[in-house]
Amino acid sequence: MLACVLEENGPSLKEIARPEPLADEVLIRVRVAGICATDLELIRGYMNFRGVLGHEFVGEVAGPQTHPLLGRRVVGEINCGCGDCPWCARGMERHCPERSVLGILDRPGAFAEYTCLPSRNLHVLPDAVEDEAAVFCEPLAACFEVLEQFPEIVEREVLVIGDGRLGLLQTQVLHTAGARVGLLGRHPEKMALLAPLGIPAWSEPAQAVCSEGEKWPVVVEATGAVEGFSLAVSKTKPRGVLVLKSTVVSEARLNLSSVVVDEITVLGSRCGPFAPAIRALKAGAVRTSAMIHGRFALRNAPEALEKACEKGIIKVLLRP
Amino acid sequence: MLACVLEENGPSLKEIARPEPLADEVLIRVRVAGICATDLELIRGYMNFRGVLGHEFVGEVAGPQTHPLLGRRVVGEINCGCGDCPWCARGMERHCPERSVLGILDRPGAFAEYTCLPSRNLHVLPDAVEDEAAVFCEPLAACFEVLEQFPEIVEREVLVIGDGRLGLLQTQVLHTAGARVGLLGRHPEKMALLAPLGIPAWSEPAQAVCSEGEKWPVVVEATGAVEGFSLAVSKTKPRGVLVLKSTVVSEARLNLSSVVVDEITVLGSRCGPFAPAIRALKAGAVRTSAMIHGRFALRNAPEALEKACEKGIIKVLLRP
Repeated sequence: MLACVLEENGPSLKEIARPEPLADEVLIRVRVAGICATDLELIRGYMNFRGVLGHEFVGEVAGPQTHPLLGRRVVGEINCGCGDCPWCARGMERHCPERSVLGILDRPGAFAEYTCLPSRNLHVLPDAVEDEAAVFCEPLAACFEVLEQFPEIVEREVLVIGDGRLGLLQTQVLHTAGARVGLLGRHPEKMALLAPLGIPAWSEPAQAVCSEGEKWPVVVEATGAVEGFSLAVSKTKPRGVLVLKSTVVSEARLNLSSVVVDEITVLGSRCGPFAPAIRALKAGAVRTSAMIHGRFALRNAPEALEKACEKGIIKVLLRP
Repeated sequence: MLACVLEENGPSLKEIARPEPLADEVLIRVRVAGICATDLELIRGYMNFRGVLGHEFVGEVAGPQTHPLLGRRVVGEINCGCGDCPWCARGMERHCPERSVLGILDRPGAFAEYTCLPSRNLHVLPDAVEDEAAVFCEPLAACFEVLEQFPEIVEREVLVIGDGRLGLLQTQVLHTAGARVGLLGRHPEKMALLAPLGIPAWSEPAQAVCSEGEKWPVVVEATGAVEGFSLAVSKTKPRGVLVLKSTVVSEARLNLSSVVVDEITVLGSRCGPFAPAIRALKAGAVRTSAMIHGRFALRNAPEALEKACEKGIIKVLLRP
């Protein structure tokens, strides 16, 4: 089958053997996959990953032939726990120390005609959720993680920093959940997506004010950029909460003294629950279509990855 | 009066005018003062502070002559709020944006014959608490701050990292409060202080294990060193809590990706309540005398500051 494989010299297209599902796993025919900032980080060396890239996907169960979900349209949670440890016993496969992660850690990903995941990782999609919306499930689930870790956030004023895909999704999720949320970004054309929802957006840090002034009780850092952390600290009130969502904050020169002096709580937040993400897409509570800035065939994956690196591009899709 | 003043070229002894207490303030004759790691950081440029150094002290109220505490032995909270803002209204002068801080920010400190503080900042000392114990009140209060911010800590297994003054005090406070605590340090001679209390201490990270293994549910970073943060992250379990106590973590090359991936909560923690600190000293719950490694007259402050910089030195005291 065709696959986009990351090797020493970067990503390239390869003909490789179709993966064989292990016991408890299913074979999935990929319908569409999304390129994420994490894929671009992996290409730059993050996690030292080698293998088939891709962890955002919608697919169709293609085997085993006896599987009850055969032919069903699914999305899949990307963390695969060992099933035996205390983390897995508590349903926290996402933190299993022996886990593999689709297209990120010890597991071939979804930029391919087929991929495999444990059966328990799958979520069947309602017909009402189209492929090009469902492909946002994984990042959208990550945005719901914040609500699970910090439920009081819905009663607060929250500033999301970063107008990339994660920031735009996080802002909408918090808005839908009832938080008074605003977005600080850099690209008016991206933030325009939020105007019909009545969500304020600013492109200058000093403009981003809440009822208490320039510093906010809660800030979500979703820039994916090294400078984002310091900016986020500077916008957080003393005793406030700073949620770190950018999965990759490279090693940077950071000063943590404001975190101590202002007694800020920094909350690391990663992958999240798929069920509420699917519900939100089904309810039309989150706008995704305007974020799709490119559609490529899998055989053009190298061009698609280049496109995803361009300034101002939010989401690029691949179709096998 | 004699004072140790930090200027452009570093600290030196000066004859300066005795400070005049403002309305609501008292004049305090300093009996003994302690040199803190923060003083050494200030000398290196932290906060761009210029003026009389020193924020750990025990003194005697020397004016106004009509003050009800005249002649009483006191310690004093170092943050002086404006008294008018929402923070001060909530009793959180420590976070008042207009605050001055004794010997740290816009307020002359206690390495002098006399200093001034607002009357409301003072705590009268019980006779049972001697000067050389009471001088630990300010850092000890900072250790009680953790209990106020994160009360559940007493039910957890906690690793304190750093065997300086702050780490040794924090470990004892947590032990007294009921947490199962251990210390990871570098100096067996310092950690020996904890052995009579039955508190385990290790000098190798791999040795520091709790009932759940090498990673701990709660870690307190109290090294005051740039490398401390990464070590602390590496010893914190996924979904665990990392308390940052080192008031000065210089700008360092840090990678926050583990905080996100492991969904760690980083809790910045600074100054704390004096009342429980005084109670702990009165009850003899915290051992301090073995931490005093030098006693100098104020006129020898430059030598005292040099001594405080030496390896292995915990606490150096100054007496006017």
